[in-house]
Amino acid sequence: MTITVPAEALRQFIAAALRAVGLPEADARTVAKLMAEADLYGADGHGVFRLPQYVRRIRAGAVNVAPDIRIVRERAGMALVDGDNGMGHLVMRFAARTAIDKARASGVAWVGARMSNHAGPALLYARMLAAAGMAGLYLCVGNANHLAPWGGVELLLSTNPIAVAVPGLEEPVVVLDMATTVASYGKVKTYAQQGKPLPAGWMIDREGRAFTDAKRAAEALLLPLGGLEAGYKGYGLALVLGLLAGTLNDAAMGRAVIDFNTDDSSVTNTGHAIVAIDPAAFGDPTAFRERVDRVVREIRASQPLPGVERIRVPGERSAEKHAERASSGVPIPPALKASLDHLAADLGIAPLA
Amino acid sequence: MTITVPAEALRQFIAAALRAVGLPEADARTVAKLMAEADLYGADGHGVFRLPQYVRRIRAGAVNVAPDIRIVRERAGMALVDGDNGMGHLVMRFAARTAIDKARASGVAWVGARMSNHAGPALLYARMLAAAGMAGLYLCVGNANHLAPWGGVELLLSTNPIAVAVPGLEEPVVVLDMATTVASYGKVKTYAQQGKPLPAGWMIDREGRAFTDAKRAAEALLLPLGGLEAGYKGYGLALVLGLLAGTLNDAAMGRAVIDFNTDDSSVTNTGHAIVAIDPAAFGDPTAFRERVDRVVREIRASQPLPGVERIRVPGERSAEKHAERASSGVPIPPALKASLDHLAADLGIAPLA
Repeated sequence: MTITVPAEALRQFIAAALRAVGLPEADARTVAKLMAEADLYGADGHGVFRLPQYVRRIRAGAVNVAPDIRIVRERAGMALVDGDNGMGHLVMRFAARTAIDKARASGVAWVGARMSNHAGPALLYARMLAAAGMAGLYLCVGNANHLAPWGGVELLLSTNPIAVAVPGLEEPVVVLDMATTVASYGKVKTYAQQGKPLPAGWMIDREGRAFTDAKRAAEALLLPLGGLEAGYKGYGLALVLGLLAGTLNDAAMGRAVIDFNTDDSSVTNTGHAIVAIDPAAFGDPTAFRERVDRVVREIRASQPLPGVERIRVPGERSAEKHAERASSGVPIPPALKASLDHLAADLGIAPLA
Repeated sequence: MTITVPAEALRQFIAAALRAVGLPEADARTVAKLMAEADLYGADGHGVFRLPQYVRRIRAGAVNVAPDIRIVRERAGMALVDGDNGMGHLVMRFAARTAIDKARASGVAWVGARMSNHAGPALLYARMLAAAGMAGLYLCVGNANHLAPWGGVELLLSTNPIAVAVPGLEEPVVVLDMATTVASYGKVKTYAQQGKPLPAGWMIDREGRAFTDAKRAAEALLLPLGGLEAGYKGYGLALVLGLLAGTLNDAAMGRAVIDFNTDDSSVTNTGHAIVAIDPAAFGDPTAFRERVDRVVREIRASQPLPGVERIRVPGERSAEKHAERASSGVPIPPALKASLDHLAADLGIAPLA
């Protein structure tokens, strides 16, 4: 049976686990807060679900629990952050704050990061920008290559995601958070667990034919965004986002990306980039946010297709989920609960309840 | 019969036409050069093909032939350019040069533009960055709303494109240039002309059903990138790119976008954004460009699907086309030739030959 736990209990559990493997108190709290935020926003594959893996990697020495996260290059419009192989959440919070501070002075600031790690869902960092009144973008190199080049069969690319946030005034923040494949590998695994065939257009086999057998997904290839008709676009996006978030920062990209799902002990050298845009540099920021509201309302009030209840704007669903889970708790399915109980016993901390 | 004309003849013809409707000599040459570049790169719908429309709009007073293109807001990491309703090519060349100059000092610079016009294919401006040794992005609000919100039927969005360029050292520049729909409206029109049914997954009808009758395309809706499986991603991209390239700059977006294919006399207030990233700010720029080459070569040398001759990297095809057309000329199909001959007679200039 799926239980639900209050966000505060989740935060405390995550922080206790991270402290148990050596994170300093303040860092454990920071990471726990961001991981619980991922669950509150409904990014179920990127929150507490990742905790056992993070703990394994920390114990194996693959992540530095006492990093010296610092700016190694800096100009008015940019900074390059070296994460010293710390937890990705710490590196990206530092990078986002750096971008926001610099953008207040320079109008726009691009902050790259290298020697980082998995940092949870992209929307977290895009939303940090919006919470500071900024628009902006977040991009990163994913931590496992699940994507082949268009026309190829070798897994040389991750499903490198992009998140973009644009704040309105009264309307919820517009937040796009998307991977550059049609479906994520996580979704495929969910279908396998449920014994359902995959929708056509999610994967192809290594001969290039449509593939729908979720249980044999490991033999097949995710289709890039655009699918059979226009997958070269998703492939192109995954490539250029990876070059900008990884290669530019001298972080891992292409064959240098390790599969952190199967390898607990290698340093990932994860690359990210975050771009903060201060609307006040472009004109009256309130007028800008009113214009965003106007576009959002035009879309939301427009005529739906037959059978469509309402037209949504990106970010609405995650905001609704956050409100709902903040009040009624985060659902923890049985398999996850068992894995967290096992982790708690192993670490000698109180189980999640 | 399709003729081919040397690029120089094409440039001279375009410049003569633009001079005839009042553009100053230097501006006519600049626009002609960029329009001919579009044809050289194979962006056939965005080069000389647009000349009769540009001339109509200039004659109708919808475009300012003597604009005061200028920076109206500026900080170290950004500038906002007001195009004073000049030709988009002039505005975007100015914006790209501003971004490059500022990025040399600040590392990264974001330049927005408003009161601009159609500027040809996105790749032109991304390639300008790469020619200056920069990586970067170009985005814009398209000049006709061909896209409905996901789940809707009203055409509130353009197929807002994005182009990203990343220069290697010995390998050709990686250049992605993509619209945020599965197929462009131009491609649909080509199918209609050839009497071919559309591939499934390009359009839906206003009931949400698959639609393949190219001749009746005006009754149907383009599917956003991602198609039926994941079109909410393409919709989200079109929306956020439009907010960043249009709304942020107080340029047209949403219902405020006029259809410049059917309206010759209204000011478009087109918005664009260009972001220049100087790799030298992040470290040794040559080492960066070598890393880009390494990724490009990994991909190109990887195993193809059965039946696939070779794996391509975005930008290769347009670079090949440019080399081929620079040496053997730009093809001008009969219908286009007739329209350009008509234009020449109308303007009293020598026909293209």
